[in-house]
Amino acid sequence: MYEMVNIGSYSFEEYLEMVEFFHGAVAPGLVLGGFMVDLAIGRISEGALLDAISETRTCLPDAIQLLTPCTIGNGWLKVFDLGRFALSLYEKKEGRGVRVYLDTKKLESWPEIKSWLFKLKPKTEQDKDLLLAQMKEAGNGICGVQSVQIQPQYLMKQSLGKIAVCSECSEPYPVKDGIICRGCQGEAPYVSGLTAVDAGPEESSA
Amino acid sequence: MYEMVNIGSYSFEEYLEMVEFFHGAVAPGLVLGGFMVDLAIGRISEGALLDAISETRTCLPDAIQLLTPCTIGNGWLKVFDLGRFALSLYEKKEGRGVRVYLDTKKLESWPEIKSWLFKLKPKTEQDKDLLLAQMKEAGNGICGVQSVQIQPQYLMKQSLGKIAVCSECSEPYPVKDGIICRGCQGEAPYVSGLTAVDAGPEESSA
Repeated sequence: MYEMVNIGSYSFEEYLEMVEFFHGAVAPGLVLGGFMVDLAIGRISEGALLDAISETRTCLPDAIQLLTPCTIGNGWLKVFDLGRFALSLYEKKEGRGVRVYLDTKKLESWPEIKSWLFKLKPKTEQDKDLLLAQMKEAGNGICGVQSVQIQPQYLMKQSLGKIAVCSECSEPYPVKDGIICRGCQGEAPYVSGLTAVDAGPEESSA
Repeated sequence: MYEMVNIGSYSFEEYLEMVEFFHGAVAPGLVLGGFMVDLAIGRISEGALLDAISETRTCLPDAIQLLTPCTIGNGWLKVFDLGRFALSLYEKKEGRGVRVYLDTKKLESWPEIKSWLFKLKPKTEQDKDLLLAQMKEAGNGICGVQSVQIQPQYLMKQSLGKIAVCSECSEPYPVKDGIICRGCQGEAPYVSGLTAVDAGPEESSA
C-alpha cells in the first residue's frame, strides 16, 4: 500500500509516536481505537461541541483522549465499563451523535486481528508486526456506525455543590456527600492508618 | 519571584501549554494538580513501576495522565470518586506509596486559592490571573504527604477472560459478563433503537 494513512489530523506514524508517549506502548487497541475515533469524528457535524463515551475501560479511552478534546479530567469523556470495544461521540447539549463499533462479520478477512480480539492464541504466539500491518490496512473497514441518542440523565452536568472541610480528615469535600467525606465513610482504597510524611524541602516558604 | 518553577520535567510555562493542548484550557485544578503530582513523584523510589489513584474525577486525573505513565486506557490510573482533591502514586505490585492532599491549614496565606477551592466567590468575580500567580508561588507548599498502603483487592490485574460474540448485538464481549453483554443487559447509556449508518466511503475494500 502506497496510500497515505491518516488518523485524525496525524499521519499513521505520528499517531503511533503519540500513543507510545502517552500510553507507554504501541498497544494494538490504540491503533484500532484510533481508526474508530477518526471514523466517528468524520460522521459528526463539524464544529459541534462534543462529549464522548467509551464502552470499555481498556485502551479505547486513550485513543479518545488523544484525538478529541474529551478527557477524563475535563469530564467530556465518560467510561461505561460495558466490555464492548465501542465508542460514541455526541453533541453535548442534545445528546445526538454516532456510535462506532466492531463489525465481527467483517473480521474474517483479517485473521490476525480476529485472533487478537478473541484471544485465540497465547500472547507469546501473536505476531505483533502482522497484527499492526493488518490493522493499518483494514483501517475503519472492520467497523460499523450507528446513530445514537444519549439518555437525558447522562447529559446533565454534575456540579460538586458546596465545599466544606471534612471533620475527620480535615480535607475539602462536597457537602452533598454527607456529614463526613466519602473517603472517611470507608470508600478509600487504603489500608487504614495513613502516616504523615514530611512534605519536605521542596515546600515553599509562604 | 525569579526562581525557576518546574512541574515534573517541564518548566511551568511548558506544562501550561501541555495542559491547554490536552485538557482544552488552563484549568486551575490542573495547575494545582501538577504541583501535587510532582510532589508525589519526588517522594516515590526512582524506577519503581507506578500505579496511580485519583480521589476525584475533576481535573486531577489529567495532571496524572500528563506527568506520569499512568492513564485511564492503560489501567495504571484508577479514579475513585471520593470528592477529595488528592492522589496516590504507589508501587504497583506491593501497593506501597505516597498520598498527596490539600492541607487546608496552609491555605490561609493564599486567599485566592482558598476562595476558588471553597467556591467563596461566583466564578465571574474570580481573578484567574491572581489565582494562577498564587498557585505558582505556593507550589506544593499547600499540600501534605502521607505514606499509604493500597488494599490488596485493588492490586490484582483484572483480566477480561474469554471473549465471545454477544447473541444480541453481535459484538465481542467478555463471557464472564453473562449470556449477553452488559450493554444488551440494559446498562448502555443510549435511548433504545440504534440506527445503522453507512460506514461510508472511507471503508477500505478488504
